[in-house]
Amino acid sequence: MFDHAQRRERLWERMAEAGVDLLFVPPSGDLEYLTGMQRRIPAFGSVEYAHHWVTGAFVAPGREPVFVLPRMVREFDLPEGVGGGDVVTVNETDDAVALFAKALGQFGTPRRIGVGHRTWAATTVQLGKLLPDAAIVDANPLVNALRRIKSPDELAAMTRAATLVDGVLADLQDKVREGVTELELASEIDLQMRRRGSRTASFDTAVWAMGPDTERDATVRLSDAALRAGSGVSFDFGSVVDGYVSDFGRTIHIGAPPAEYERVYALVMAAQAAGMAAAKPGATAAQVHAATRQVIVDGGYGRWFRHRTGHCIGMDVHELPFISEEDDTPLEEGMTFTIEPSVFWPGRVGVRVEDVVVCEPGGGRKLNQHPVTLVAND
Amino acid sequence: MFDHAQRRERLWERMAEAGVDLLFVPPSGDLEYLTGMQRRIPAFGSVEYAHHWVTGAFVAPGREPVFVLPRMVREFDLPEGVGGGDVVTVNETDDAVALFAKALGQFGTPRRIGVGHRTWAATTVQLGKLLPDAAIVDANPLVNALRRIKSPDELAAMTRAATLVDGVLADLQDKVREGVTELELASEIDLQMRRRGSRTASFDTAVWAMGPDTERDATVRLSDAALRAGSGVSFDFGSVVDGYVSDFGRTIHIGAPPAEYERVYALVMAAQAAGMAAAKPGATAAQVHAATRQVIVDGGYGRWFRHRTGHCIGMDVHELPFISEEDDTPLEEGMTFTIEPSVFWPGRVGVRVEDVVVCEPGGGRKLNQHPVTLVAND
Repeated sequence: MFDHAQRRERLWERMAEAGVDLLFVPPSGDLEYLTGMQRRIPAFGSVEYAHHWVTGAFVAPGREPVFVLPRMVREFDLPEGVGGGDVVTVNETDDAVALFAKALGQFGTPRRIGVGHRTWAATTVQLGKLLPDAAIVDANPLVNALRRIKSPDELAAMTRAATLVDGVLADLQDKVREGVTELELASEIDLQMRRRGSRTASFDTAVWAMGPDTERDATVRLSDAALRAGSGVSFDFGSVVDGYVSDFGRTIHIGAPPAEYERVYALVMAAQAAGMAAAKPGATAAQVHAATRQVIVDGGYGRWFRHRTGHCIGMDVHELPFISEEDDTPLEEGMTFTIEPSVFWPGRVGVRVEDVVVCEPGGGRKLNQHPVTLVAND
Repeated sequence: MFDHAQRRERLWERMAEAGVDLLFVPPSGDLEYLTGMQRRIPAFGSVEYAHHWVTGAFVAPGREPVFVLPRMVREFDLPEGVGGGDVVTVNETDDAVALFAKALGQFGTPRRIGVGHRTWAATTVQLGKLLPDAAIVDANPLVNALRRIKSPDELAAMTRAATLVDGVLADLQDKVREGVTELELASEIDLQMRRRGSRTASFDTAVWAMGPDTERDATVRLSDAALRAGSGVSFDFGSVVDGYVSDFGRTIHIGAPPAEYERVYALVMAAQAAGMAAAKPGATAAQVHAATRQVIVDGGYGRWFRHRTGHCIGMDVHELPFISEEDDTPLEEGMTFTIEPSVFWPGRVGVRVEDVVVCEPGGGRKLNQHPVTLVAND
């Protein structure tokens, strides 16, 4: 579906410019982007086989990647293989350092090696021992430079991931009523996402109620509490489709909304619209954040918009650049990011909206289609 | 509930023995063990805030830990704080390297710094730049040396985590019938675990059917397929209670089981019993693996017992030592590990059992109470 070989060729150009001779990339969005090798669904408690630190691939210009995989990873996690390139299998009783060094040795004596952003320390330390004269650098800027602009095929996958969550909320919306628990709704969302083809949830599905009758803050993302009338119930969830993720949010009120909820709801939607209008090629990420934030500041709720406006998104949920005050990256056509303003005021009101948009000449265009009109259930 | 200060004091002794002056520990089971700081529920796609690479704590003898946290991590993920020690907050527009260096500078000039096993490369590389003359080593052996022996308080938490999953399967067992999908059962397991107080699933809940009518292998851990009579349905799931995890498995047959299923079922249970009997203090992990495996080899199914017998478990699902052929660690009283033999023969038969046991003078004692008798539903 995706041309991984072409992606690697583009990476080689970046590597040459940066003077990086070799990359080591562990299982990650980067590795899936470059080779198609699927990541495992993550575990809360570490899951690790013998010699697990070797897991990943060496990528260098002009040749196929070389994967190093513990036997159990290869046999149980990757029964369909890695999609091209040599594989060095490390069995339980093998000398893992020797096999890793042998794989590395195929690439000569690199002077500068890039390692994936989240490569384990155990691996980074071992690379340093095996290449005492090489500089080790974070490979993230090299791969992110490619990943940040989405091709038409990638935009199609991201649209499928966005459409999937639109459909889940459309079907669930009517169940957001007094008496149902947040946990039951989250469970239903996770089930329906998978039924519709999501590989897993792209992050921990969150459902939480805020309003004048509770001190609840958005920091508690899910509870077993039953919903009560008079609350705004916020949703934050995403799917994984063909390796690409979505990240989506709405707030639904139970009962007739108070005037302040209506005012804040309108403000948050206006802030999102302002962010989308500002998201033209050449505008910086910080400028889009400022344009979004200003609407909420002008409305008198600036203190309660407590986070960045968004983040780029693709095979990972949070990719650089971030739509945030510290990030002066100019946006480019084909970048995809969330615009997700909120007002979270514990004991008063909680409203959020989140959609994925793509940067186009006229501004941000939503990949999601779910409306932003105020919904208040009986 | 747990005495983190006392754990750190015991760590200091290990650090002194190893000549390690300072540790940097990112959010992980290690950090939760040493300080009580909770890990975030993991995301499939990376979730990352501005300057996220700084996140973690410096730990050194004779003083409180010093945490470095991006503002958004502190405000949204840790609203109740970190449970003791100084916190350096890195705001979006701060100079993250300078603040990280300042926190590090409080610890003088370490000659040898240990970093948590899964510290991001971005962080490891930065530590190397800031401490060009220091040796950087993997801190895992130091902390694991403490974590591998469970105290009575820890065994109590692990028993709660095991009892929780026992109860979930006891209540679910009767629903394992023709027509229900694997996904529906997994969804119900996840919901019931959380209802009973599990923070999340400790790893991706797996439900899969094997038998003579399907080529399905255990490598596909979950599908949307409806269960059919004539299958053995295997379960693999775990809970998180007070930071400690469980990891649990059984196989339930739908319809009257064929003679081979009954034979293999008895064999796998006998293998587990043999492993438990062998799991006395002083026996090596490899010996327990061999004792377990031999029963299945003698029964004629050795080729289809395709993985290690188990792994230690505690705040992480897979902890060292592993109950595996390469691991010659002598077991000690108070170690907790799984014994999880299986026969996975695609197109023929699939049976597994998994319980957490604690090493005691008489052998392994199960923390789970769910029976291992053959269950065949109509």
